[in-house]
Amino acid sequence: MNIGDAPTGGRAEWLAQQLRQAIADGRLPVGSKLPATRALAADLHISRGVVTDAYQRLTEDGHVVGRGRSGTTVVAAPVAAPTATRPARPADPPSSGALFASPPGPDIFDSLRAATARIDLSPGVPDLAAFPRAAWLRAERAVLTDLSAADFGYGDPRGAPPLRLAIANWLARNRGIRADPDEVLIVAGTAQALGLIAQVLRRDGIKAIAVEDPGSLGARQHLRNWQVETPPVPVDGDGVCVDALRAGGAPAALLTPAHQFPMGVVLGGSRRRELMRWAGDGGLIIEDDYDAEHRYDRPPVPALRAMLAERVCYAGSVSKLLAPALRVGWLLAPPKYRDPLVEAKRFADLGNAVLPQLVLARLMESGEMERRLRLLRRRHRRRRDAMIEAIRRHLPGATVHGAAAGLHLTITFERGLDSGGDLADVDLAAAALAKGVKVQPLSWHSLRPQPPGLVLGYAARSPSDLAEGVFVISEALRRVR
Amino acid sequence: MNIGDAPTGGRAEWLAQQLRQAIADGRLPVGSKLPATRALAADLHISRGVVTDAYQRLTEDGHVVGRGRSGTTVVAAPVAAPTATRPARPADPPSSGALFASPPGPDIFDSLRAATARIDLSPGVPDLAAFPRAAWLRAERAVLTDLSAADFGYGDPRGAPPLRLAIANWLARNRGIRADPDEVLIVAGTAQALGLIAQVLRRDGIKAIAVEDPGSLGARQHLRNWQVETPPVPVDGDGVCVDALRAGGAPAALLTPAHQFPMGVVLGGSRRRELMRWAGDGGLIIEDDYDAEHRYDRPPVPALRAMLAERVCYAGSVSKLLAPALRVGWLLAPPKYRDPLVEAKRFADLGNAVLPQLVLARLMESGEMERRLRLLRRRHRRRRDAMIEAIRRHLPGATVHGAAAGLHLTITFERGLDSGGDLADVDLAAAALAKGVKVQPLSWHSLRPQPPGLVLGYAARSPSDLAEGVFVISEALRRVR
Repeated sequence: MNIGDAPTGGRAEWLAQQLRQAIADGRLPVGSKLPATRALAADLHISRGVVTDAYQRLTEDGHVVGRGRSGTTVVAAPVAAPTATRPARPADPPSSGALFASPPGPDIFDSLRAATARIDLSPGVPDLAAFPRAAWLRAERAVLTDLSAADFGYGDPRGAPPLRLAIANWLARNRGIRADPDEVLIVAGTAQALGLIAQVLRRDGIKAIAVEDPGSLGARQHLRNWQVETPPVPVDGDGVCVDALRAGGAPAALLTPAHQFPMGVVLGGSRRRELMRWAGDGGLIIEDDYDAEHRYDRPPVPALRAMLAERVCYAGSVSKLLAPALRVGWLLAPPKYRDPLVEAKRFADLGNAVLPQLVLARLMESGEMERRLRLLRRRHRRRRDAMIEAIRRHLPGATVHGAAAGLHLTITFERGLDSGGDLADVDLAAAALAKGVKVQPLSWHSLRPQPPGLVLGYAARSPSDLAEGVFVISEALRRVR
Repeated sequence: MNIGDAPTGGRAEWLAQQLRQAIADGRLPVGSKLPATRALAADLHISRGVVTDAYQRLTEDGHVVGRGRSGTTVVAAPVAAPTATRPARPADPPSSGALFASPPGPDIFDSLRAATARIDLSPGVPDLAAFPRAAWLRAERAVLTDLSAADFGYGDPRGAPPLRLAIANWLARNRGIRADPDEVLIVAGTAQALGLIAQVLRRDGIKAIAVEDPGSLGARQHLRNWQVETPPVPVDGDGVCVDALRAGGAPAALLTPAHQFPMGVVLGGSRRRELMRWAGDGGLIIEDDYDAEHRYDRPPVPALRAMLAERVCYAGSVSKLLAPALRVGWLLAPPKYRDPLVEAKRFADLGNAVLPQLVLARLMESGEMERRLRLLRRRHRRRRDAMIEAIRRHLPGATVHGAAAGLHLTITFERGLDSGGDLADVDLAAAALAKGVKVQPLSWHSLRPQPPGLVLGYAARSPSDLAEGVFVISEALRRVR
């Protein structure tokens, strides 16, 4: 309330009106007491008579009752409190044409998510229907029972000790990495990991991080947000071209060696050795190990971090194991960067929320996560096979890449989408979305010219949805040609 | 595995040893299959004979059994897997002397938290033992039952729509703020809010944000981390000195108008009007409304945001309402900064975790939060009274500040701690910690010279602990004099 707003001579009515408003919108709920007249007068620097007068008006209105020394109590609100009743709007659903008409900006993935589609083949999510709701709730009950009061206070910015231990064990069992729990930094997903790394490397004088091409558009956007240059390095059938990386001269590189995004190739043995030499000569590797656990035909490829701890920043998360909505990931860094990364995490948010960390630690240490991973592997493999079968049937001109692991595959049209070669993959993606199927065009993830292609997630959809989705894409292709 | 590490002529034994190691530490668990010899040979660029030889050695060891076409299966681990069994170390507990010997660095609050103490009077936390565990678990069960699979995917970086609605309603009922749910940005606590604001203001050319003096050391550290200058503005018994703010020329100011941290004064009516004029002339207010709901003797003072939405960035959180460990807060910004703040939040972490947001929304909309707040107010008031009583008895030379609201009070020793005036409040804090009582010295939160003082949290301790804690402080004072 600003008494300066009151008309001269009308202060009592102005104050009464302010109080009616406060009662109406719940700031002074029914049953609460009005401030003592003396106190409110002092607060507002007005005479006590004005306040008494205003209270009298409210009494006459029937909004309050005065009881002498026991104070003045609110008994009725003048009108229903106009509280908000509709949730926040989701981002406006864009039209299929608008979404793909211009180069993708920083909000592109929000816009794509907001677009309505009957069958969503966006890459990057596991089978979300399989989220272990009952196991999560059981673990949460156990955590809430065991927790001390102090655990609800501000926590360790590096993460809750039980989760750091569980991650160290998980990485030993599943990724061949030996790490001390003290080395593990818990972060809010790989997106945050990239931001923290970018901040710390910039302060260390590293202003460019080479990225794979094709490579994740999202990862590139995150690095660039932190004023880090992202020179592209080509990817071929054996993974990133280390010769080109070396020739480019970037001091660091963001790589997806276990399952390249989006092309899905595994970094070959000789490339691994070349990369080790590059790192040995001073290069810093940022290993985004985003979906390596999901390997279908043989055990997962060990992480680069397992072989060269001193030159690898390793980032993983539960986004592809459980759910992106959890926003939990982990980061292992060479000793030199460990303390600066903890400091960056502290200044980012003082550390991840504690309860979900402890729930996750229980799921990991109890074997629930491995059980779930085995279940997902079987289910995802069937879905992958269904998608490949549908592509063979409906899109005979498409080449399938990277289906040996992960949650997505990529198709390219090596001879173009149409005979003239004018049609771009964004046109196909727009046409598919117009028909109710959401996909990402390969060109979003490419810096240099590539054959047109699509990145297709299969893990979160049923085999029949996948078959129908691919059929709709083939129909869309026929239509735009 | 890097076959280049193998001794010439010893490749089969080297490979067998690598595999034994992988079985031992769980990368190849019992029951899993070894890769097909042909595939592993191709992967490692070695002859298939070397792989067959290595597998034969493992068979002879009894670690695997080969079954021809059905593959080679791990049946026994050679030694117990040396997985980590101890959790990550907490930050090393510092000595009471070392903690207060030098100016506080960015890790000071982690170090203080790590210090062991029988009675912790650090400010900034509510009664954590009162965390509504059962209500939280009930709400979580309801959320997990209702959630669609898609809700486990990547979410809206602005926050989950039901929580944004609940916050808008909460702010209307408790802080006099009318805001559309679309204006609410969910963040990971006030620390993250300050970081996002600092990033966005810097990009808008604002390189200095004035801070209150005394004022929160933590908030100041956060702003400075983002390369924002923090010129101090004095605080007196009526709150921040707006004259000095205007004279200093900073384009923005971080303020705690409802309950100044750490001095606890409420911004007086005429100061409010002066501040409104400063903002009307172009100043930007960042309102840290950290504990305003905890007001004991009359209704909370309305937020500045309620009066001047166009010039106030408003930040609040559940840290003082429920628990800092939840890492949930909210931010309302003038229209100009809304989209840039959403973008900064997206690049920080893609948005808060979804499950806790939905749980919190249920607690807020069901009235559980208000019930809890009433319970806390009663309990905190008794604790405050116990602390004031103990101070009157044991520390008669101390002046009490800011006890009308919040979770802490501040005491100052206006005539110094000793007759010579040589003793500093950090010495007293060190002596108290050596005797098992943890407090923060006022000088940590001061930029210009102030009388020595202590900032004392009372909300999280029982009345008897508070009385004992204050007594120990008086003993420590007697000792260091």
